[in-house]
Amino acid sequence: MTTIGILGCAGRMGRSLINAALNAGATLAGGTERPGSEFVGADLGTLVGRAPLGVAVTDSAEDLFARADVIIDFTAPVAAPLHAGLAGRTGRALVIGTTGLSAEQQAAVVAAATAAPVVQAANFSLGVNLLAALTRKVATILGPEEWDIEIVEMHHRHKVDAPSGTALALGREAAAGRGVALDAVSDRVRDGHTGARVKGHIGFATLRGGDVVGEHSVVFAADGERVELTHKATDRGIFSRGAVHAALWAAGKPAGLYDMADVLDLG
Amino acid sequence: MTTIGILGCAGRMGRSLINAALNAGATLAGGTERPGSEFVGADLGTLVGRAPLGVAVTDSAEDLFARADVIIDFTAPVAAPLHAGLAGRTGRALVIGTTGLSAEQQAAVVAAATAAPVVQAANFSLGVNLLAALTRKVATILGPEEWDIEIVEMHHRHKVDAPSGTALALGREAAAGRGVALDAVSDRVRDGHTGARVKGHIGFATLRGGDVVGEHSVVFAADGERVELTHKATDRGIFSRGAVHAALWAAGKPAGLYDMADVLDLG
Amino acid sequence: MTTIGILGCAGRMGRSLINAALNAGATLAGGTERPGSEFVGADLGTLVGRAPLGVAVTDSAEDLFARADVIIDFTAPVAAPLHAGLAGRTGRALVIGTTGLSAEQQAAVVAAATAAPVVQAANFSLGVNLLAALTRKVATILGPEEWDIEIVEMHHRHKVDAPSGTALALGREAAAGRGVALDAVSDRVRDGHTGARVKGHIGFATLRGGDVVGEHSVVFAADGERVELTHKATDRGIFSRGAVHAALWAAGKPAGLYDMADVLDLG
Amino acid sequence: MTTIGILGCAGRMGRSLINAALNAGATLAGGTERPGSEFVGADLGTLVGRAPLGVAVTDSAEDLFARADVIIDFTAPVAAPLHAGLAGRTGRALVIGTTGLSAEQQAAVVAAATAAPVVQAANFSLGVNLLAALTRKVATILGPEEWDIEIVEMHHRHKVDAPSGTALALGREAAAGRGVALDAVSDRVRDGHTGARVKGHIGFATLRGGDVVGEHSVVFAADGERVELTHKATDRGIFSRGAVHAALWAAGKPAGLYDMADVLDLG
Repeated sequence: MTTIGILGCAGRMGRSLINAALNAGATLAGGTERPGSEFVGADLGTLVGRAPLGVAVTDSAEDLFARADVIIDFTAPVAAPLHAGLAGRTGRALVIGTTGLSAEQQAAVVAAATAAPVVQAANFSLGVNLLAALTRKVATILGPEEWDIEIVEMHHRHKVDAPSGTALALGREAAAGRGVALDAVSDRVRDGHTGARVKGHIGFATLRGGDVVGEHSVVFAADGERVELTHKATDRGIFSRGAVHAALWAAGKPAGLYDMADVLDLG
Repeated sequence: MTTIGILGCAGRMGRSLINAALNAGATLAGGTERPGSEFVGADLGTLVGRAPLGVAVTDSAEDLFARADVIIDFTAPVAAPLHAGLAGRTGRALVIGTTGLSAEQQAAVVAAATAAPVVQAANFSLGVNLLAALTRKVATILGPEEWDIEIVEMHHRHKVDAPSGTALALGREAAAGRGVALDAVSDRVRDGHTGARVKGHIGFATLRGGDVVGEHSVVFAADGERVELTHKATDRGIFSRGAVHAALWAAGKPAGLYDMADVLDLG
Repeated sequence: MTTIGILGCAGRMGRSLINAALNAGATLAGGTERPGSEFVGADLGTLVGRAPLGVAVTDSAEDLFARADVIIDFTAPVAAPLHAGLAGRTGRALVIGTTGLSAEQQAAVVAAATAAPVVQAANFSLGVNLLAALTRKVATILGPEEWDIEIVEMHHRHKVDAPSGTALALGREAAAGRGVALDAVSDRVRDGHTGARVKGHIGFATLRGGDVVGEHSVVFAADGERVELTHKATDRGIFSRGAVHAALWAAGKPAGLYDMADVLDLG
Repeated sequence: MTTIGILGCAGRMGRSLINAALNAGATLAGGTERPGSEFVGADLGTLVGRAPLGVAVTDSAEDLFARADVIIDFTAPVAAPLHAGLAGRTGRALVIGTTGLSAEQQAAVVAAATAAPVVQAANFSLGVNLLAALTRKVATILGPEEWDIEIVEMHHRHKVDAPSGTALALGREAAAGRGVALDAVSDRVRDGHTGARVKGHIGFATLRGGDVVGEHSVVFAADGERVELTHKATDRGIFSRGAVHAALWAAGKPAGLYDMADVLDLG
């Protein structure tokens, strides 16, 4: 039975990870909070409004790495070298979803992966990662002579960038599937007299409104038929669920740096 | 029993109108072609590969206006004044789908409408016109404080303009429903750092690919719910069908200039 | 400034109504809980984790009807006669979303509506009620000779009935728009050799899965085109929002029994 | 340069195959019709309203197998043994889309595949076959503990069976991906009090209306997210296009019986 440890387990994402782990039937080895936190000593089950698990929050990451088979880290970039170093020294599996790492912080993660299995991803949603892998695969099959690729996404009204990072990532997968660079074939804007569509280009369309968590479709359109691959996120909790899935996969794997495509075996 | 006459009945649109009229169970009074056309004298049923109707193509528009209750004109701007004049003098109903009229030609249509019922529209698809009317209605109800409006459309890869004329028309209906001008609230482009969505704006998103005849959705998005109004055209024959529908409606109406919103009673 | 009172304000729906009222900028006159409830005397703002409003929970419905312009009731069928009676005696507007009333309880509501404005509905989502009104309207325009109506819905995996009550209600609106009874034209099951579709019938299709709050589409399909009216609910809070909308509408209206179609002016 | 021969080349499907082959830039080696057919001797290009190709219709299948690298057969079950026998004797590649073969006729196809490459499929649409392969793949990844599978399809009003053969095939792929038999987990009907969804079941929903060529979606729904794989057919010509694609793939392959999953390399 794989046991999971959660760094920063009393924060919003930490609690979400506790719930996701329990929902997946996993065993929690423990969790950490900063020294001095009011939550040190609290029971992990109680933290999320469930029955006590008999597992208390500790303020020692070392202690957690000693007890858990795999550790999940969604804390902060500054803590990444410490956590990566512990993974490297103990050989414990590490799942890291912290984003915005500096080059130096990232180097620590890469170094740890020479001695432990490390899964790193910017988006742990199972569905989005699956969509990305499918997109690359389908783009290799449905070639640009007959099939046009369009990527359409919708997010809530507060989102400040377009297209979404995930839409662009999907575009990169589609381009990679066709052996081209996205920048060379990307149609990010259409307005006024555009002329006919250029063969091989990949178009983007962006909708914003309401409180939509995130919807992405990759449309492959030919004469007479379309194939559409769609992901709809309706709850941010799916990110925790994906991280737990990655954790259960990573425990016991050979050392190496993995991403969600590896976890999903869609490399 | 209303009888229909079709100007330019042997062309691609003319034949489509014959089929649409017969499919609707309407009675054809006749049709015209240019003097000297090989089709003058041909049977209207035979023209479309059906059993003969006993009604021959004539080269006289005057003759057609004398025999039909309502006349459909999808010919050419240059012929509009002649046809409108005949409608005005005879009082026969006229359905005109010719686009690109000059101001002078349009004035002739307007003048005819003082003496005959005239239906004029740029798009006779029943569904698209219904969508336009619904869009205005819904935009009056779902106000900008809570509801964001987005319009997304997809057309074939050969289309050279964006957003589609119909998408813009839908945007104008939405804006009108809210008592604003579309130009003042239109978000036609989103790329890079856009900032958060501005309340009351109407966004457009454009997809191009394959041989899609035309799909339009108007999305009203609020916190926790969305209302979407969608039209999908899969066959260009729907334009003929809409024109015949308008013709059957127009016959016997009071003089006046009508559009498809009147025909559909969604004004 | 219209003031709103909320019966049963400390329950799950009551708190959701407090939030919805405050989000809509409305003024709360007060709220009730059962005599003896621990929440009597609590501040309505505090109840929902906001700043205190200076308005306390009372255990007296009479008191609430004396102070509020409009009262919202999502409590229980057994309380409906008391609340309806108070509306009738005071003339205060009442919004009632309690379902499952007995004939006697319903009679009390009807009686109250002779002396006060009463809005009663089974579903207060603005979007769903709008969809229902649009469905009836469109069904009157897109007749059964050419247009087939299909209603498809998706709900979460725990839902125990099919089609959903809302889907059936949409079917009744569609049938009413065509002047027929739904029972006479309903295709609720298709399996095996069904034969061709019968003209004028209304089909239902049901999907179940995940935690989908509720999605409904009414599809009008003809040769060459489709019109689709869709509602997607992603948060149950929309029901509170709709009830508050109804409350603000009802205050000051003439006595009478209204439904959400009246509130939305789509009668 | 692979050359293609088309059996029954003057029929509706035959002409569609000629067009598809020319559109794909393939070289036509010839085509057959029945002895005595008025089309014997006609030019294949002329048959489809194109410039003459200098290739005439013959009434000899033997002759065609002698000249073409790959032969496409959409004729009739009764002719399958003859055509399969020729493929076996000559080693030429054969693409067979004839459906409804008897056990004996099918045995002839299987026998031919010991000596020649044979591609056999019930549906040659590239998109549908890709959808089937993706469905199996995704079903192996998105397990029944968290993900519910629903298959929804829409076809024209004249279709007499439900769910569609393709929907059932998709269901079989989904079930196979999970290592179960479709019959054991299929929910083909939902009506009235159904109770909650059973974990691991695969649901079907059927829409009928208009002239829809065929739309299929496989929905994987979990808490908080959905993955949807969709195919939309809008023109029956895609079946010819898929068969030509299969033909170009098959020429020169080792003997064996292949299906479209092999052609698409999605096995």
